[in-house]
Amino acid sequence: MRVLFEEIVFGTKRKEQIVDITGEVRAVLNRWGVQDGIVVIFAPHATASIVLNENEPGLERDILNLFNLIAPTDADYHHNRIDNNAHAHLRSAAFPPYVVVPVKNGKMLLGAWQRIMFVENDGPRAQRRVIVEYMGE
Amino acid sequence: MRVLFEEIVFGTKRKEQIVDITGEVRAVLNRWGVQDGIVVIFAPHATASIVLNENEPGLERDILNLFNLIAPTDADYHHNRIDNNAHAHLRSAAFPPYVVVPVKNGKMLLGAWQRIMFVENDGPRAQRRVIVEYMGE
Amino acid sequence: MRVLFEEIVFGTKRKEQIVDITGEVRAVLNRWGVQDGIVVIFAPHATASIVLNENEPGLERDILNLFNLIAPTDADYHHNRIDNNAHAHLRSAAFPPYVVVPVKNGKMLLGAWQRIMFVENDGPRAQRRVIVEYMGE
Repeated sequence: MRVLFEEIVFGTKRKEQIVDITGEVRAVLNRWGVQDGIVVIFAPHATASIVLNENEPGLERDILNLFNLIAPTDADYHHNRIDNNAHAHLRSAAFPPYVVVPVKNGKMLLGAWQRIMFVENDGPRAQRRVIVEYMGE
Repeated sequence: MRVLFEEIVFGTKRKEQIVDITGEVRAVLNRWGVQDGIVVIFAPHATASIVLNENEPGLERDILNLFNLIAPTDADYHHNRIDNNAHAHLRSAAFPPYVVVPVKNGKMLLGAWQRIMFVENDGPRAQRRVIVEYMGE
Repeated sequence: MRVLFEEIVFGTKRKEQIVDITGEVRAVLNRWGVQDGIVVIFAPHATASIVLNENEPGLERDILNLFNLIAPTDADYHHNRIDNNAHAHLRSAAFPPYVVVPVKNGKMLLGAWQRIMFVENDGPRAQRRVIVEYMGE
């Protein structure tokens, strides 16, 4: 059994932003030369999300609108008495900061329209991290 | 370590539909004769969801109503300028298309009322696929 | 490969309640002396959730308010014709009852503000169970 870790590190530029990391995850798996297993893509942040969906500019806006619908930026939150980012925490609670994807013959078994998208809910941030963990053969 | 894959393939008949696939997943695990590990049940579709919950006709309607509340069918979405299924994408983003379940002595450790339910958000479709991946002993 | 199971068992005292179980999960991993792998933290209940987020009293209230926004306690649900807890089922569908966390050198790779929080949606209950499964080296 192999258990492998890598970190993808990047900055975000806007308050809310979607960053497609599918290519980076694929590159890591290819470099490792893995076979059959799973990959866990995990952001160690309480104000970020990872969403599995189509990467299309209009849909990106719809997704960010949905995030804003679930937890509006400027609602009256209790957490904002000590910080100013409750909406971002709630979005990370509702849209969790990780996904698990099957890997077969070294390839993620994603559908044609499924991309791995990091969602910044509390940017901009100089450094965001995503852990890529492979476990399998 | 064993890493095993199977696909469950089926069609859907309605625009929105819940398909309980618990029995199919159990049958696959039984056929394989697995021991301790995990099973990842993953739909490679950007307009489907997999929900872990009770299978009761009234609750099915409540779940579909919740999906419609989160992303109403006929709201004004940006993605609909190039396609007509933004609501289905958003539902798949909010209710992800996979679940991970512990397996012990060959049995999924589901609670008494937990069933594995595929949710069609953009049907009918002639063919929907669900990947069942076991990893463990 | 090691596959290890433990159960965390506790009661809940209120109708809605957040229980931080991070310390219990860490204690189980420490006792096992694990290395690199994953941990699946899974509640076998159709009316509970597990959320990964900051544990701060104000945010706890915000999270419970969000749960109530997604599925209000006293809306008119179909499932309530045979039971009285549809809202709790819907919250468990929207906020799933499990999380998967990478483990490296025996430590969960959680961010500084990420805690593992069990959410009771249908309490009080004399006994709630959370399965902790480690798979890895």
